[in-house]
Amino acid sequence: MIRKIILIALLSVLSYADTVFAEPKPSLVQPREIIFSINRGDDETIQHVLSSANNVLKFYGPEMVHMRIVAYYHGIRALLKKEKEIAVRVDALQQYGVEFVACENTMRTKHIKKEELIDDVEIVTAGIVEITERVKEGWIYIVP
Amino acid sequence: MIRKIILIALLSVLSYADTVFAEPKPSLVQPREIIFSINRGDDETIQHVLSSANNVLKFYGPEMVHMRIVAYYHGIRALLKKEKEIAVRVDALQQYGVEFVACENTMRTKHIKKEELIDDVEIVTAGIVEITERVKEGWIYIVP
Amino acid sequence: MIRKIILIALLSVLSYADTVFAEPKPSLVQPREIIFSINRGDDETIQHVLSSANNVLKFYGPEMVHMRIVAYYHGIRALLKKEKEIAVRVDALQQYGVEFVACENTMRTKHIKKEELIDDVEIVTAGIVEITERVKEGWIYIVP
Repeated sequence: MIRKIILIALLSVLSYADTVFAEPKPSLVQPREIIFSINRGDDETIQHVLSSANNVLKFYGPEMVHMRIVAYYHGIRALLKKEKEIAVRVDALQQYGVEFVACENTMRTKHIKKEELIDDVEIVTAGIVEITERVKEGWIYIVP
Repeated sequence: MIRKIILIALLSVLSYADTVFAEPKPSLVQPREIIFSINRGDDETIQHVLSSANNVLKFYGPEMVHMRIVAYYHGIRALLKKEKEIAVRVDALQQYGVEFVACENTMRTKHIKKEELIDDVEIVTAGIVEITERVKEGWIYIVP
Repeated sequence: MIRKIILIALLSVLSYADTVFAEPKPSLVQPREIIFSINRGDDETIQHVLSSANNVLKFYGPEMVHMRIVAYYHGIRALLKKEKEIAVRVDALQQYGVEFVACENTMRTKHIKKEELIDDVEIVTAGIVEITERVKEGWIYIVP
């Protein structure tokens, strides 16, 4: 009887099992390295990407994850100072260590100047190259 | 003359060359591990993702591939019991061992209860974290 | 004083720091291997993917990068001979060694014949399988 109860308890735990960590588990010395791309410029997509970053931070804890978000093509809008509502959220994520990266090729095509970008945004020549090199280094690339 | 025929035969084979397997080739003991995401909720996208899963199963053979499909954001619709037409296809894929995973953050935001999900769907806190951990483990992440 | 000037010069260089190469750096013997997918058929998306390929070629130099672009689902349109404007760009990229791959499952569904494809396009049974196997081999998969 007790065995049966234990078994049932065990099964119900299993059915609610959460994501199993890969090895090595994320830690202070080896935080998960995750790179997001954002290539669309509509409000809904941008808010979704920022919320996703927030959820990832909450899950791992900000010390256990190192995030970079690369904005290119229409997604560059996520990094414009003048988009106040978005900028507030970007800034909040930056406070937690999330790094934002802008694509210079996009900036040239869309005639966006460095000064128009939110503070502390990094600029790289090509957003896709930045993603490629980080993945080659072991970062996990997610299209949110 | 015979040499020439052999050469032509060989060349025509080569021009139809199919995907070359990476090493180690998929096998019963080491099936390919593939994780799909679905983040959009329109019929066309959902049907496309399910068809893609089907094509992958057909190519490798169900014993040679281990698939997980993570539904989050608007894509959660793919896992709702009430979407009968979709549910039939999800169930068929489950019969072949394809695993479906729902994002709890999405469920909370969209007020979806566990009971509304198709049977045997796993729930994880964050869909993107599930993808991240599987990729870290060696799974191949595809955005279909 | 001189130290201070050097420090300022150094800092200003750092703030413009470009993408850091992963190890091993791309080289003639070990070029970066990058695989793009294209699954949408509208002009804007197709042009964006081709421009992205172009930017990647420019950044690394054509000898330092090996690119494959897999077209499937609505994206197959990027490989049709009759789409003259697109075909010119695809051909130009092919001249630089970029390889284009068509998904046969898509061709069957959309009733597209081999003869309708741009010359030198490879055909594989399933576009997603091609991506999977290349990633398993170490290629970097990007959704542009």
